[in-house]
Amino acid sequence: MIKQTELKLNPYPRGFHLITNSILNVIDISKIESGLLHVFIKHTSASLTINENADPTVRADFESHFNKFIPENALYYKHDYEGPDDMPAHLKASTLGSSVTIPITNARLNLGTWQGIYLGEHRDHGGSRSLVVTVYS
Amino acid sequence: MIKQTELKLNPYPRGFHLITNSILNVIDISKIESGLLHVFIKHTSASLTINENADPTVRADFESHFNKFIPENALYYKHDYEGPDDMPAHLKASTLGSSVTIPITNARLNLGTWQGIYLGEHRDHGGSRSLVVTVYS
Amino acid sequence: MIKQTELKLNPYPRGFHLITNSILNVIDISKIESGLLHVFIKHTSASLTINENADPTVRADFESHFNKFIPENALYYKHDYEGPDDMPAHLKASTLGSSVTIPITNARLNLGTWQGIYLGEHRDHGGSRSLVVTVYS
Repeated sequence: MIKQTELKLNPYPRGFHLITNSILNVIDISKIESGLLHVFIKHTSASLTINENADPTVRADFESHFNKFIPENALYYKHDYEGPDDMPAHLKASTLGSSVTIPITNARLNLGTWQGIYLGEHRDHGGSRSLVVTVYS
Repeated sequence: MIKQTELKLNPYPRGFHLITNSILNVIDISKIESGLLHVFIKHTSASLTINENADPTVRADFESHFNKFIPENALYYKHDYEGPDDMPAHLKASTLGSSVTIPITNARLNLGTWQGIYLGEHRDHGGSRSLVVTVYS
Repeated sequence: MIKQTELKLNPYPRGFHLITNSILNVIDISKIESGLLHVFIKHTSASLTINENADPTVRADFESHFNKFIPENALYYKHDYEGPDDMPAHLKASTLGSSVTIPITNARLNLGTWQGIYLGEHRDHGGSRSLVVTVYS
């Protein structure tokens, strides 16, 4: 059985943000014994990944790290006319990924204690981002 | 319901290439209301990712970026006997990923306007690459 | 049809390790004509990826590469109180990914000849890691 819905997130500032609850709010998994949740982001300059859900300094360090190793204004960028944050945003999106797939077990996301779903917002002014949430069980 | 097929791509030169249409050509999603498409690459020196489907300079910048941050001839590479492009190809494959999963909604891939599926060909002469395409609905 | 099980790996040292057989040992795919296997790691400092299953120097080079490009003791790390290996472990986990999805065809994982599933153990003393293995067919 497949259930699918779309979700428009409110705009987030550039950086990494916990969105686990925003996703759980739009889909009912309370009757699912075993299944999988797939979340997909319909953009090429923002990403989804799973990481630590507690200390916000982890999210801050993600931003610092990817800014250093996927820098703005690299001399070899040819795709630069949408601003210095654009090409790095595309590269960050593919390095981190466009979707996450998470097991559902006994009516709950079967995440580890410290895991949450991150939105990676890689543009300075990315605006609202659209997600497609699919549950199969 | 699961449908699965294999696809052999024609050889591509080293770099990033749009292959969305090659995948849609081998699988019929015209009757699927809600589902998921999974595409898997059966190689360890090529990758699949989702990114911008319009300006080819984005794909060129992907090649430049990953060549810089996953370089050839790093002094610490021990696995070097298959050529200088081999070990970086393995690292690029795992950094970018071996598969993509995309929602299907109302008989179409539910991609954002600017999204397409990239083949990352990371070898100088990678030859034909085999994909497994699975649709569940 | 969905089958799901959990698996606790024995502790591995820091580095990359082939775990394909550990996964196949806990799930029966011998009756599945077409399907997908999803493996998820319930931790934020270890990862799953697919790469070369033969030469162990590939796994050694993975460790060297990610140690260089996701370094310990970066000056901008704020999240440093769990040890120098902790914040890089989070970054490696998201760069490589928390899950892999692999097609099943004719009762076998439809991997390429040279592909295997890697555990990326990114902590010095990560301990036992829990996986959730889901098969749908």
